[in-house]
Amino acid sequence: MRLSNYFLPILKENPNDASVASHRLMLRAGMIRQLTSGIYNWLPMGVNILQKISNIVRDGLNKAGCVEILMSCLQPDDLWVESGRFDAYGKELLTMKDRHDRNLLFSPTNEEVVTDIFRKNINSYKELPVTMYQMQWKFRDEIRPRFGVMRGREFLMKDAYSFDIDKESAIKSYDKMFETYFNIFKSLGLNTIAVRADSGQIGGDLSQEFHVIADTGESTIYYDIAYDEAIKNSSLDLATMRNIYAAADEMHDPDNCPVPAERLVAKRGIEVGQVFYLGDKYSKALNAYVTNQNGEKIYAQMGCYGIGISRLIGAIIEANHDEKGIIWPVEVAPFIVSLVNLKVGDGSCDDICEKIYLQLNNAKVDVLYDDTTNSVGSKLATADLIGSPWQIIVGPKSAANNMVELKFRRTGEKEIVSIESALSKVCA
Amino acid sequence: MRLSNYFLPILKENPNDASVASHRLMLRAGMIRQLTSGIYNWLPMGVNILQKISNIVRDGLNKAGCVEILMSCLQPDDLWVESGRFDAYGKELLTMKDRHDRNLLFSPTNEEVVTDIFRKNINSYKELPVTMYQMQWKFRDEIRPRFGVMRGREFLMKDAYSFDIDKESAIKSYDKMFETYFNIFKSLGLNTIAVRADSGQIGGDLSQEFHVIADTGESTIYYDIAYDEAIKNSSLDLATMRNIYAAADEMHDPDNCPVPAERLVAKRGIEVGQVFYLGDKYSKALNAYVTNQNGEKIYAQMGCYGIGISRLIGAIIEANHDEKGIIWPVEVAPFIVSLVNLKVGDGSCDDICEKIYLQLNNAKVDVLYDDTTNSVGSKLATADLIGSPWQIIVGPKSAANNMVELKFRRTGEKEIVSIESALSKVCA
Repeated sequence: MRLSNYFLPILKENPNDASVASHRLMLRAGMIRQLTSGIYNWLPMGVNILQKISNIVRDGLNKAGCVEILMSCLQPDDLWVESGRFDAYGKELLTMKDRHDRNLLFSPTNEEVVTDIFRKNINSYKELPVTMYQMQWKFRDEIRPRFGVMRGREFLMKDAYSFDIDKESAIKSYDKMFETYFNIFKSLGLNTIAVRADSGQIGGDLSQEFHVIADTGESTIYYDIAYDEAIKNSSLDLATMRNIYAAADEMHDPDNCPVPAERLVAKRGIEVGQVFYLGDKYSKALNAYVTNQNGEKIYAQMGCYGIGISRLIGAIIEANHDEKGIIWPVEVAPFIVSLVNLKVGDGSCDDICEKIYLQLNNAKVDVLYDDTTNSVGSKLATADLIGSPWQIIVGPKSAANNMVELKFRRTGEKEIVSIESALSKVCA
Repeated sequence: MRLSNYFLPILKENPNDASVASHRLMLRAGMIRQLTSGIYNWLPMGVNILQKISNIVRDGLNKAGCVEILMSCLQPDDLWVESGRFDAYGKELLTMKDRHDRNLLFSPTNEEVVTDIFRKNINSYKELPVTMYQMQWKFRDEIRPRFGVMRGREFLMKDAYSFDIDKESAIKSYDKMFETYFNIFKSLGLNTIAVRADSGQIGGDLSQEFHVIADTGESTIYYDIAYDEAIKNSSLDLATMRNIYAAADEMHDPDNCPVPAERLVAKRGIEVGQVFYLGDKYSKALNAYVTNQNGEKIYAQMGCYGIGISRLIGAIIEANHDEKGIIWPVEVAPFIVSLVNLKVGDGSCDDICEKIYLQLNNAKVDVLYDDTTNSVGSKLATADLIGSPWQIIVGPKSAANNMVELKFRRTGEKEIVSIESALSKVCA
């Protein structure tokens, strides 16, 4: 993509209304704009990463055998009355009346609707287990939206729901999703920690949250230091993740903690995913059953599983930035390379940039080519701000020798290299 | 995809509440389920085609240099008050109040919001022209939703908006989008006809609608028979499309028609896209301007362009089905091949099917493998119903000779061929 054809409204100054780094940087890097409290429009670079993350999550779920559906944003209230949550959910539920005076609500979560799909379309134990998921915009009317997309009102969420014939099988589905989440977050370039959590309003008696560690995290989590060691040695695996002591604040009892104090770590975390074993809470309330081998009615045993796609972007930035801007993990970067032409109009600079741009496009490496006539300082600041893992900087001095500057955004390391060498590094 | 792992709730009987073929077939083929009047949930095969169509449309727009954004579903009412449409839009506008008693509405279209994005982020004539688009769920509170997804209330729409410095340039953007639409509909395997149309509630003084011809179309369109001839000769090109006389019902005046009666055709059409030149209707109302070379304020000249993604699926089916089911154009088919194992458990049948399934997956040809133990009749009926362009039918008799039956869904032609021959045909 050529920057001159792109829509990337960079803000040079820090916006006043953004109190956390991710919010500030998403505004400054032209990824989002607030429309009204807790509701955002996504600009091209924001849409790009929403799609990248969605595709990685989708791939992971498809590989795990889940099937993708898409439930509507608006729902009639009757299913919520049937489940008992219409009144219980409280003021975060946004309700409205249509022109015929019928009650609708904007879906904040979909246990009721997916259970309705299940009861109307699946009849036999032979059709189980099944896990359905969707990626859809949801709405929760937070009393005080804040932190940009991290605690917005309208947000993109991947929600999945498993249906099984008995508890044993349901726990297997839960464990499989736990493993799938572990793999998905790894594919996203994220170290997460799974903590035992309270299942809150959703219900059920087993739940874990996946957290990204960040100083700005809104909750405290407690865990065994072995976890940090595994990350440091790059040996974090599923077994470590499963067996380690880790608990959300509300589940951690200092007087009954199996981990000795000197091995216990307390850190701030940002929740990016949660898994729940629900049992038959919703299937019973909505009379959703299958018949077993003996023709008996069996309520489905359910699990539900969420990943906050839009919030994840905020969390990734909280964990990956410096004072100059975002530092995208290569796995999710909207652009892998920022190609910066320091002197548009200079023959050598233009030629080299066009050549590199063409080759990166051919190699299907996402590149943002700054072909604008902005000042050198502004171009370099923009490249740092938007955080592509690599920068290829083409200035007249090195260009005359057919060389370019290659900068690795995370460490700031720079070297003067040949065009071929730069290309082979960023394509690796 | 193995059917045993898929979620494809086929209905054997025609549903009572579906009066048109596409609605009936989308229900029967397990693509959608109604949640409440005019609101649908999409099941896996429905999601599959929504994504296929969205990606083709996205590719076409990106190639034309448009940039993708994503506007929220919910919007505050203030921009609509500012444009004067809050009252003018009428009862199709779904409004609500949030917990702080502020007015919100579910977006039925986005002229106001995109103009707001423009005025807040684009300041100079140097940044023009720009065309922004999104694919997002919208809501129009139709008084009588009908025909399934063809006239639903919640629907997926691609809407695009162009901004130019003057009328001449704006008409160029309009023409470019017209050409892009022509190419996109071709990529979707659709013959469409563009008719002069009334610009209605959206405003502006130039508008064209793209229609798919289908007997069940809701509107009458009038056009020169040359158009049909071009389709018959497969010589339909942009020039024909641009220059031909073609008008929507409300724009056709029989007394002042340039086409002689014997060359004039009247047919039923389903509108799948519309393009509008808006002028400065919204930019003026919302004070959206750039400065020109002389530092003067110039209101942006706008165009807007829609494609109904979910409605398109209905239109494609209306134009491509028979009494047995859907006949997908190969360009958009959820699955290119239905692989039908007539005798699961038979060694030869299973071996051949597994081999074909593996090879199609390796070749990245989308295949739905019916590996269920349903009856032969039910399997064949399902394959016809879901409408993959090709069926590879593997029964014990031909399998014993290492042969399979290859059926072309559109014509019903069948032949007994070798596995290699079947694979080479469906991969072509």
